[in-house]
Amino acid sequence: MGVITLTTDLGHRDFYQAALKGSIISQLPDVRLVDITHEIPSFDIQRAAVVLRNAFRYFPNGTVHLIGIDTVFQEDSHYAMMKYDDHFFVGADNGIFSIILGENDPQELYEIDIMQDLRYLHFPLADILSKAACHIANGEPLSAIGQPIDKPLKKVLVQPLVTSNAIKGHVSYIDAFGNVISNISKELFNEIQKGRSFKLHFKRNETINKLSWHYNEVPEGEKLCLFGISNFLEIAINKGHASRLLGLQQDEVVMVEFLDS
Amino acid sequence: MGVITLTTDLGHRDFYQAALKGSIISQLPDVRLVDITHEIPSFDIQRAAVVLRNAFRYFPNGTVHLIGIDTVFQEDSHYAMMKYDDHFFVGADNGIFSIILGENDPQELYEIDIMQDLRYLHFPLADILSKAACHIANGEPLSAIGQPIDKPLKKVLVQPLVTSNAIKGHVSYIDAFGNVISNISKELFNEIQKGRSFKLHFKRNETINKLSWHYNEVPEGEKLCLFGISNFLEIAINKGHASRLLGLQQDEVVMVEFLDS
Amino acid sequence: MGVITLTTDLGHRDFYQAALKGSIISQLPDVRLVDITHEIPSFDIQRAAVVLRNAFRYFPNGTVHLIGIDTVFQEDSHYAMMKYDDHFFVGADNGIFSIILGENDPQELYEIDIMQDLRYLHFPLADILSKAACHIANGEPLSAIGQPIDKPLKKVLVQPLVTSNAIKGHVSYIDAFGNVISNISKELFNEIQKGRSFKLHFKRNETINKLSWHYNEVPEGEKLCLFGISNFLEIAINKGHASRLLGLQQDEVVMVEFLDS
Repeated sequence: MGVITLTTDLGHRDFYQAALKGSIISQLPDVRLVDITHEIPSFDIQRAAVVLRNAFRYFPNGTVHLIGIDTVFQEDSHYAMMKYDDHFFVGADNGIFSIILGENDPQELYEIDIMQDLRYLHFPLADILSKAACHIANGEPLSAIGQPIDKPLKKVLVQPLVTSNAIKGHVSYIDAFGNVISNISKELFNEIQKGRSFKLHFKRNETINKLSWHYNEVPEGEKLCLFGISNFLEIAINKGHASRLLGLQQDEVVMVEFLDS
Repeated sequence: MGVITLTTDLGHRDFYQAALKGSIISQLPDVRLVDITHEIPSFDIQRAAVVLRNAFRYFPNGTVHLIGIDTVFQEDSHYAMMKYDDHFFVGADNGIFSIILGENDPQELYEIDIMQDLRYLHFPLADILSKAACHIANGEPLSAIGQPIDKPLKKVLVQPLVTSNAIKGHVSYIDAFGNVISNISKELFNEIQKGRSFKLHFKRNETINKLSWHYNEVPEGEKLCLFGISNFLEIAINKGHASRLLGLQQDEVVMVEFLDS
Repeated sequence: MGVITLTTDLGHRDFYQAALKGSIISQLPDVRLVDITHEIPSFDIQRAAVVLRNAFRYFPNGTVHLIGIDTVFQEDSHYAMMKYDDHFFVGADNGIFSIILGENDPQELYEIDIMQDLRYLHFPLADILSKAACHIANGEPLSAIGQPIDKPLKKVLVQPLVTSNAIKGHVSYIDAFGNVISNISKELFNEIQKGRSFKLHFKRNETINKLSWHYNEVPEGEKLCLFGISNFLEIAINKGHASRLLGLQQDEVVMVEFLDS
């Protein structure tokens, strides 16, 4: 039984995500469908990429991850399929593949080539992408329904600025608990830290100088920072909503200063 | 493995939809359950009918669509099962069946007749309707648990006013993207248009005089109209929230004027 | 095919609930997963317990109910597995087991003892609890992965005050329809009522003196009280949002006075 996950901005109020699921199980009656989320903000490729990049490795190898963000047809639309880290990804080639890959290369990358007059399709997600996802979940090769391509459309996330003594990043994601997640990865942090102590600066005067392992290592209501589930430096408040309580918003600057002893 | 879809106003915060699912899989352990939506506004039969009418054909023939809107028992309550277009529908006979059918006739129509003292049931959706849905999903005939009836309770949606030169309709649905969907079907539009050019009027002074195929045929932020996934005339803004930006609300008038050359 | 239900405060916007599901189906590819809800307010053990206590009996015996509320590791964290009423429950031993049990005793109760250095786990829900849930759903004995314990951590809900002529309770839950559910159970009500008539008092001057069986036994827009699906005394308005219309909030006092004839 193949597994197909869904990551879309379709929400749950309308019939769109149901139509997508119906079209998939009409093609592949035994498939297992798992919603990653249908609550990506409309057209927000970056958010979808961050959510999917964090979620996909929890699924079995061979899972097909269908991405329904910004898939409406235009004259220069391309739809792609990618094998990466033994998982499959299907979606519009609108930059999301390059964000998922980061610095890495895909194992396979194809443009979907299912003969249809695309101009007359109103719902490419159900009409094209779901067909490709079912094809792959059924164990068929990508090459049977596509042409190999070299690279996906490149979309670059703003990366942290790095000096020998500091990393200047920003808030890339605020989760439903209010945890504030930056774009500073654990690998980058370790590489620059080289065992030194540090000060994390944010807002005008706030600082944290200790990494925690868990949210509850500080008293309730106090701030902390840690590398959490997402592997990126995160600012949180034990049992509190850090974004609201600290006034930290999407895209605000956070800076780590490393201290020479 | 049978398929049962769920369309309700139960939401996800309480235990009601979970109880419904539990009662179904207790009866039919191998059934596939698919949520159409649990976010229909309370008691909004019309919205449920529009969502389901648009979604159901994406599912395999033989799918059972369980409708949990306005199912609470009253002295004159009737619960019905319908076969229509090779799909099955189960719910309270409160008008929703007639909206789903529109001008069409059902293949089969039965009142559910499961012997129980209905007056003492607090949750007919789990106590009666889920039993009927499982019975049908299990391949059993409707006739085994019901009595044939002639017509479902009639509920009529307000239809567009039509003259030889114009169609006056209204906004029947606003989706989560803010797309404004009217009650003017593609068939009606074509029938009256007879190849003429047209002007779509709405609000005090807004007009559109061209049908698009896709949301992105106009520059971002500009308005357009099209027959989209739903097959009804839709007013949208490329990458924008048309309802908010144009101030178009549920039930407002939209009018198509056809121009003689 | 085992069944695992999920009750968490993880929401649907982030990747956390998807990661949890991925980790479960990676371990047990044929399991059936059912969301009870992911919309418990953050850390609200009491709400989770009320939802789960009302939902679990609708599921087949042997179902595993995985509870993802307040599971973050701390030095004194304990994770538990319980068999109760032929269902299984897995979660942090933070008081929720005792609320689910009420006055009853579990059939089996174990502390989970999966050898790992817990201090370095960021996601115990996926790293520990999902493993225990899969183990049980696979038909394995609790004793294979835990040590028996006597009692779960005790958390007591505020109980109604009872005299021979009155029950003074409070609002314990407001559902998505606005129905106001108290902590006065049907059993307690019957025990004290002894067939007498009654007056339900709430807010400054509101009273109801008749039990209804259904929401629609009074005209639309009028208030009523009943023992509904939840088995607790509930104040509702036929087709209306009782909490909003009557101004009744979580934790407000409601009192039943019994009248001697």
